[in-house]
Amino acid sequence: MIIAIKPGTAGAEVQEFAAQLEQQGVRVHFSEGIRQTVLGLVGDTTGIDADALLAHHLVEKVIRVQEPYKRANRLFHPADTRIDIAGPDGETRRIGAGYLGIIAGPCSVETREQIIGISQAVKNAGAAFLRGGAFKPRTSPYSFQGLGSEGLDLLLEAKKVTGLPIVTELMDINHLEAFADVDIIQIGARNMQNFTLLKELGRCDKPILLKRGYACTITEVLMAAEYVLAGGNDQIILCERGIRSFDNYTRNVLDLSAVPALKKQSHLPVIVDPSHATGLSWMVSAMAKAAVAAGADGLIIEVHNNPEKALCDGEQSITPETFASLMVTLKKYADIEGKKI
Amino acid sequence: MIIAIKPGTAGAEVQEFAAQLEQQGVRVHFSEGIRQTVLGLVGDTTGIDADALLAHHLVEKVIRVQEPYKRANRLFHPADTRIDIAGPDGETRRIGAGYLGIIAGPCSVETREQIIGISQAVKNAGAAFLRGGAFKPRTSPYSFQGLGSEGLDLLLEAKKVTGLPIVTELMDINHLEAFADVDIIQIGARNMQNFTLLKELGRCDKPILLKRGYACTITEVLMAAEYVLAGGNDQIILCERGIRSFDNYTRNVLDLSAVPALKKQSHLPVIVDPSHATGLSWMVSAMAKAAVAAGADGLIIEVHNNPEKALCDGEQSITPETFASLMVTLKKYADIEGKKI
Amino acid sequence: MIIAIKPGTAGAEVQEFAAQLEQQGVRVHFSEGIRQTVLGLVGDTTGIDADALLAHHLVEKVIRVQEPYKRANRLFHPADTRIDIAGPDGETRRIGAGYLGIIAGPCSVETREQIIGISQAVKNAGAAFLRGGAFKPRTSPYSFQGLGSEGLDLLLEAKKVTGLPIVTELMDINHLEAFADVDIIQIGARNMQNFTLLKELGRCDKPILLKRGYACTITEVLMAAEYVLAGGNDQIILCERGIRSFDNYTRNVLDLSAVPALKKQSHLPVIVDPSHATGLSWMVSAMAKAAVAAGADGLIIEVHNNPEKALCDGEQSITPETFASLMVTLKKYADIEGKKI
Amino acid sequence: MIIAIKPGTAGAEVQEFAAQLEQQGVRVHFSEGIRQTVLGLVGDTTGIDADALLAHHLVEKVIRVQEPYKRANRLFHPADTRIDIAGPDGETRRIGAGYLGIIAGPCSVETREQIIGISQAVKNAGAAFLRGGAFKPRTSPYSFQGLGSEGLDLLLEAKKVTGLPIVTELMDINHLEAFADVDIIQIGARNMQNFTLLKELGRCDKPILLKRGYACTITEVLMAAEYVLAGGNDQIILCERGIRSFDNYTRNVLDLSAVPALKKQSHLPVIVDPSHATGLSWMVSAMAKAAVAAGADGLIIEVHNNPEKALCDGEQSITPETFASLMVTLKKYADIEGKKI
Repeated sequence: MIIAIKPGTAGAEVQEFAAQLEQQGVRVHFSEGIRQTVLGLVGDTTGIDADALLAHHLVEKVIRVQEPYKRANRLFHPADTRIDIAGPDGETRRIGAGYLGIIAGPCSVETREQIIGISQAVKNAGAAFLRGGAFKPRTSPYSFQGLGSEGLDLLLEAKKVTGLPIVTELMDINHLEAFADVDIIQIGARNMQNFTLLKELGRCDKPILLKRGYACTITEVLMAAEYVLAGGNDQIILCERGIRSFDNYTRNVLDLSAVPALKKQSHLPVIVDPSHATGLSWMVSAMAKAAVAAGADGLIIEVHNNPEKALCDGEQSITPETFASLMVTLKKYADIEGKKI
Repeated sequence: MIIAIKPGTAGAEVQEFAAQLEQQGVRVHFSEGIRQTVLGLVGDTTGIDADALLAHHLVEKVIRVQEPYKRANRLFHPADTRIDIAGPDGETRRIGAGYLGIIAGPCSVETREQIIGISQAVKNAGAAFLRGGAFKPRTSPYSFQGLGSEGLDLLLEAKKVTGLPIVTELMDINHLEAFADVDIIQIGARNMQNFTLLKELGRCDKPILLKRGYACTITEVLMAAEYVLAGGNDQIILCERGIRSFDNYTRNVLDLSAVPALKKQSHLPVIVDPSHATGLSWMVSAMAKAAVAAGADGLIIEVHNNPEKALCDGEQSITPETFASLMVTLKKYADIEGKKI
Repeated sequence: MIIAIKPGTAGAEVQEFAAQLEQQGVRVHFSEGIRQTVLGLVGDTTGIDADALLAHHLVEKVIRVQEPYKRANRLFHPADTRIDIAGPDGETRRIGAGYLGIIAGPCSVETREQIIGISQAVKNAGAAFLRGGAFKPRTSPYSFQGLGSEGLDLLLEAKKVTGLPIVTELMDINHLEAFADVDIIQIGARNMQNFTLLKELGRCDKPILLKRGYACTITEVLMAAEYVLAGGNDQIILCERGIRSFDNYTRNVLDLSAVPALKKQSHLPVIVDPSHATGLSWMVSAMAKAAVAAGADGLIIEVHNNPEKALCDGEQSITPETFASLMVTLKKYADIEGKKI
Repeated sequence: MIIAIKPGTAGAEVQEFAAQLEQQGVRVHFSEGIRQTVLGLVGDTTGIDADALLAHHLVEKVIRVQEPYKRANRLFHPADTRIDIAGPDGETRRIGAGYLGIIAGPCSVETREQIIGISQAVKNAGAAFLRGGAFKPRTSPYSFQGLGSEGLDLLLEAKKVTGLPIVTELMDINHLEAFADVDIIQIGARNMQNFTLLKELGRCDKPILLKRGYACTITEVLMAAEYVLAGGNDQIILCERGIRSFDNYTRNVLDLSAVPALKKQSHLPVIVDPSHATGLSWMVSAMAKAAVAAGADGLIIEVHNNPEKALCDGEQSITPETFASLMVTLKKYADIEGKKI
């Protein structure tokens, strides 16, 4: 940690301030410049609050050299983390460390027929996981909020029928028990900094699919993961799903540079959601391919047998036919990138 | 609601589509252009899902003419909403409809001495409410997370001593019972779209101070309020506290145009938090004055007796002396604006 | 164009307003809603100023249904535009309509040895065009501003030696004559809305590589192209090079969804600059591959033989060896996408 | 300047790198941490290119402690700069250093009657300068581009009639001669980083009103000013006019924190344009007052006698009556802030 002292501060004051800092267990190096002194703090600075330092009357700037996350940091965990999940059919699906895990399914579970039909279609096309929303976060209280526990039951039935492990979103920590047979718990973008929820998930033994908040930095994504990791749960899949920008051509801007960025900073697998990011079904295939080319460890794609009648987000769902055709191309891309699909 | 049909669509197809729409309880008007047909939907369109329409193969664009919020909409509730809160001293404090409510206090409750001292200081300077964090949302799991229920007890003691009603943040809906004597429940920016929490707050009978998410639009703020209003709780105070931008000179960009915007769209009172928005104590007074000039119904300001030793966000806290001096100027501004402080 | 009239407006006033509009050569359709009237304008609305309408006291909202660009619009020019450029070696290089054009070279021309060396290296690796900056737009007046006309001469020499057509940035319209032997004129992101410059380029007969301004929308990019097209020059290559966001992990956020977006809206070829977008050399290959997967018609990549000694932007340049290795993979991707490289 | 060396670098390599740095005229201090070494560069680092350093294989991060601007920096010029301009009536108008300069007038000059009428009205209300556009930067090549030199002539006539100094936008450096009698040359947001233009303005002896680019940081605004200052022209007025964000309720987000920020970093006067920032006439007064409260040295406001018939940007213009009424309130605010209007 680097502290720039305000120009014109007396040497004795700086000495005294440095002595206070050293009482917090770090060593302090001095760089005396022409106009100002710069202090370098050496040792474990994670316990030192940069915000509090900034309030000090001698301090002009505080600069962190080390990242504020530890367990998520690749520096201390160089090998890629791989998430392994066995389906009810006994087969193990993998995400990360050379495995490209494809998650597909409808935005919302609507009917038994719909979810079973789609799950079989995506399985046949090569998807490794089934997604489907039972509890839906909707901007409007007047919009369809998902089928709730009935939707969860239908999803579990589809799991049994197809053998695919399932991914669904948790919005309320009190539902955790009901999610006992869910394979991957999804945390939505709007809850990425719901710290109360993250702490609870740290105590749970299920893989967490953590979606990037739509205005969260790379560091904030990793700090959110750190909350879960700090609680003892190290099965986390990060997910880029678009960030806010000044343009509204697409719903969000898919930030594919987040893929190499997160993978450089962290050992956790990183997947991409081209459906929510763009909000435009005709753009999903292009961005799915781009995600794989950028190094993603997986994809989560909305597939609906009848997008025009979907109860939510139909405009971003592709049909099973388009999905099957996309999978053919994705396999070629995975091959070039040396990844197993 | 306006629907632009894709150029080149056959008239019969458009007729059939319009007939389907009319089955949803609206009337459809046709504008046949040179290159494309535009449909106008007349009637109550709040039940029609624009997203689902967009997925239809005939549809090019869907444009909402009416706002998606009802209870928060000034159109249906022209008069300003005023929030009245009686302190334990029997005096009633007000926010909105001509009353400028000033909320002040430390970021975090730290010690009995600290919170009592600050609360007396801000009361003497003219604050109407005491703020203080007991449960703190922190980006890092390793940062000070607040004193929790002990902090809440100290805050309640300060309330008794000074007579000031208190404002504090709720992060976990399971804490609601413990907040029985809290006067205004604050919902932080990161929870503004925690819909599970918002629904519960709709059933509660306390005023809610709803902070704008740092990347949420004016419409989204009002939709979050709508969740609470739809549940039956109409005591909501909106709070602008800065939005994310490309510049990091200030922590966030304080969007003061949100004040006239929210007040035009809605009857709910709107206050401003210059401390969290800027993150810079030396900028707080300038932005507090600007907020009042822009038409704010109140302010929430961080005041700390010893910002250099504050356990969180010291760099954005002003001293009781600065606060007292600011209040003198704010009273002059309120006077010009015809507001009671 | 759709005009929502303010609720409560008298019918006679609306009629009179509609009559005024019809005098501007459009027909007006009425949709009378429960709370408000909506007008649909039919005919050529490009001459009608939406801003001026908004100022009218009866008008609440104005919504454009048609895009404001014509010559850049794919609707009126369905076939892809292809840019063909013959090098001094007699060979023709192509961008667009199935051709993936790769432009490579250093940020700045520095020495004869450097530019000749790099141009030979990138040619050998398969690049079709040589890039190099002679006049450099720099944020600081104290930074290296490029070699100017001496740099241009060196670039022209490299063109002769290798046979590669060259791309270089024009900052001052008064330099146009000196650019007589430049093959593609690059307009930088900061000049994308320099309308004075764009108008002049419309009169010039050279292909223009128009870089997206770092905070410009898809529509604004196409309106900038429209300025050039309206002047008579239809040889335009659009270039996505990153947009501003709240995160600064990468210099900008490479918006790859702009590739399918621009190509859907327009017939003009779209290339991507992964070097300036990310500002990080280790990320260039991943994003270059992703750009091709997303459908780009070309790439512009910074290659420097000695990035550590580069006079500008060294941190984003890859070495000739990395470039050669990237080209091998890009050819496989182009093959899958059915593009010639 | 602080350089964090990559963890695991051998000491000898760091020594050698430091020796290279010292050859560039700075001294290098070492802070040897547990995991990495941090170098502090002491002396004049403005000549050292941070970008080039970042490309070095030993370097992990480079952090500037000093600001990259010198002449614009308040550190080296503590006193406020004041711009004094004498009108043809012999009276001197002032902006900065305690003077609140109000600039008002129409977006575009349209007719003799219009510009003379408005200029008299704004003068009577207390404006110190007349604004009016002759050459207009428009997003669309098909929009009204201003009356050009005819507009300039009308503006000069209004100057003569009212005695008010005039402010108008320069888009083309070749027009400089024609601007001989213009009092303040405005550079629009889209040209803020047109470095070719900025260099030329550095050689001119007229005050420059430099509008902040809509996605430019505080530092970039000051670097643009530095281009002009470096050329020898020290009469610069900075202007905040809104930045881009994810919300489009207002055209841009007026960033009023830029006022105290720019004034802390620089001695140059800072004014605010509430008309272009918000794009909404009904919001102009609120934001104008807020700007003065935030410490602005002036305002530039669009006033049009007939906003409904304005040839551009009518929706953001206020009437002379509203302007006169606003001025009455602004005088009270200026009084509280101790500024002369």
